[in-house]
Amino acid sequence: MHPVITLLTDFGHQDPFVGTMKGVILSIVPNVEIVDLTHQISPGDVHAGAFALHTCYHYFPENTIHVIVIDPGVGSNRQALLVKTERYYFIAPDNSVLEWIFHEHPDAQVYCLNRPEYFLEVSHTFHGRDIFAPVAAHLARGIQVDDLGEKCTQFIKGDLGTVKTLGKALHGLIIYIDRFGNAVTNIHSSQIKDVSITNALIKGNRIDSFCSYYSEQTAGESLMLVGSHGYLEIAVNRGSAQENLGLQTGDQVVVHWA
Amino acid sequence: MHPVITLLTDFGHQDPFVGTMKGVILSIVPNVEIVDLTHQISPGDVHAGAFALHTCYHYFPENTIHVIVIDPGVGSNRQALLVKTERYYFIAPDNSVLEWIFHEHPDAQVYCLNRPEYFLEVSHTFHGRDIFAPVAAHLARGIQVDDLGEKCTQFIKGDLGTVKTLGKALHGLIIYIDRFGNAVTNIHSSQIKDVSITNALIKGNRIDSFCSYYSEQTAGESLMLVGSHGYLEIAVNRGSAQENLGLQTGDQVVVHWA
Amino acid sequence: MHPVITLLTDFGHQDPFVGTMKGVILSIVPNVEIVDLTHQISPGDVHAGAFALHTCYHYFPENTIHVIVIDPGVGSNRQALLVKTERYYFIAPDNSVLEWIFHEHPDAQVYCLNRPEYFLEVSHTFHGRDIFAPVAAHLARGIQVDDLGEKCTQFIKGDLGTVKTLGKALHGLIIYIDRFGNAVTNIHSSQIKDVSITNALIKGNRIDSFCSYYSEQTAGESLMLVGSHGYLEIAVNRGSAQENLGLQTGDQVVVHWA
Repeated sequence: MHPVITLLTDFGHQDPFVGTMKGVILSIVPNVEIVDLTHQISPGDVHAGAFALHTCYHYFPENTIHVIVIDPGVGSNRQALLVKTERYYFIAPDNSVLEWIFHEHPDAQVYCLNRPEYFLEVSHTFHGRDIFAPVAAHLARGIQVDDLGEKCTQFIKGDLGTVKTLGKALHGLIIYIDRFGNAVTNIHSSQIKDVSITNALIKGNRIDSFCSYYSEQTAGESLMLVGSHGYLEIAVNRGSAQENLGLQTGDQVVVHWA
Repeated sequence: MHPVITLLTDFGHQDPFVGTMKGVILSIVPNVEIVDLTHQISPGDVHAGAFALHTCYHYFPENTIHVIVIDPGVGSNRQALLVKTERYYFIAPDNSVLEWIFHEHPDAQVYCLNRPEYFLEVSHTFHGRDIFAPVAAHLARGIQVDDLGEKCTQFIKGDLGTVKTLGKALHGLIIYIDRFGNAVTNIHSSQIKDVSITNALIKGNRIDSFCSYYSEQTAGESLMLVGSHGYLEIAVNRGSAQENLGLQTGDQVVVHWA
Repeated sequence: MHPVITLLTDFGHQDPFVGTMKGVILSIVPNVEIVDLTHQISPGDVHAGAFALHTCYHYFPENTIHVIVIDPGVGSNRQALLVKTERYYFIAPDNSVLEWIFHEHPDAQVYCLNRPEYFLEVSHTFHGRDIFAPVAAHLARGIQVDDLGEKCTQFIKGDLGTVKTLGKALHGLIIYIDRFGNAVTNIHSSQIKDVSITNALIKGNRIDSFCSYYSEQTAGESLMLVGSHGYLEIAVNRGSAQENLGLQTGDQVVVHWA
């Protein structure tokens, strides 16, 4: 059975950066399945990348190697990490992009990549090609985690932002906006499962409809629902909540119940 | 030999939706070739998705499983279909996105997906992940069509729009606009093969040049030609007919002959 | 071991053109690894495509087949080429898109594709599907180069643009702009390795900082550095040099040293 390597970056599709990483991987380990998660994270937006990873990494086969390269500090002395959880591996710069992984797996084993014999010659600006891709490939061909790095205790765990309860209301944040313009909050379905939501206030808009699916609402009208990732989101049926309501990540949302 | 699964969606590349579907597939059937057809269909535009599929599905090896997820009605009670033609399988929501397939294969066998043991836990908003991807994977690993669903006679066949002949003119529609801004009509080359085209009228523009290839026309000037898909299209050499002539899908076109 | 085929085009991701090429390839040679380099080259920009290829082709395993389809002259009588260097194969239209390959490999063997039995039926507008993809697939399944075409001596070598030294300054050009808005010049690191750069002038902007990596500069400020491809580039840390400084390909740059 092939090992699987996934790639999640902010490299976009315009340049051959992602293709280059695949060439590096295939030169080291020919029999590997490489899957793109997304390469369209806004340049440098580690929190959006962290959430995108959180929504999908656990749908992959056991032992999948997830490589995340959102790396605004490339070339500086930030560390490069290899993280092992019960089922998966994660290879990424040390900059919060694994904040959801550390949140869900507080016992994850964390290694710093310090074995240049498993790197290409290291440039100052493209560690995806020179460090992250080759280390993933060597891991996929069977090199042990302890041979690729050393145990590390100082690293950036990240901060997911807290949801506060004030009276009969939850105060949260927009943490991610998807391609359809749906605005995802940091309020998880488990936090609202026992209450009856009446409305949400966000940037001067009041949303009164809590739906199960988008087309339950009239086209062009706004709604709340629990997205496929398990978080409350603000949407517009057959429209864009981002555009229609002027939303962006970081916006505060207040959700009231009866 | 690997089975091949193709994916055609309106999910875009910004979010890891497509990557998630691939994770689901690889968790069920590791040895499969997954090919992206396109994920940039305008959100919810089932007719554009239907035409895109029509132009390419038959270039794939026999037994390829084509998965199409353009699904504005996700979560409502629309059916999920599995369609078998002589050479291929198609898995899609019941909403016209297979209209060209039904048009070309009136004898296709149509099944409704009703066996939740082959689904993931089903969310209200992401059946690509929860229904379409896992069913495709189970089909690829050898589960029989009759085990995945039951025969279905009530489903949406779709409507391709008719081309009318009035005197020495064909009246058709723009049905698809490609990345280069070429505007594809629903007039097939077989409908004009015996006549000598003189001009086309579209949105107040008159196009007088009928060419074999784009660069036969002066750069920046408009032309007609038969595209690689076999349909008449309106183009601008080294330019965009969509932008230069203000075209969009649904626009009427009248083609005259001598 | 799988053969590897890479695809570099200006087809974008909106239409299923690239997916169609993959279907053609997999119908001819099922066990092949297909890697996308980029499909977002500006329509018809053979020089941008040529540079993108130059930055990445050598990261792939030996015998990789690189297929490049930026083909504004499709349908005209331009030739189709198959080029063999010591380690790789290149299949492309005869239009400068291999200019960096010919520059680096003056002894490359060049063949014209003239064996229609290895093509699909040839349309006027989509030779990626009808010629380039099937020839790549036949090469991957073991057909010899001499069987696919005949030796060719008349072909377009291309022109990379020269860098001139005038006093203590190099005069070069912007040849590529990447997704981050970094503007790549045609000045190679080897041309500036023995001097101490003081500043660069470009479109009325003066850049005084020569850095090793982007985040060495204050956010929002411009800098020069040697990019991961080995060429001098103009960048803005956490910003876009293209937007902030109004740069485009073809712009002249003058780099001074002390």
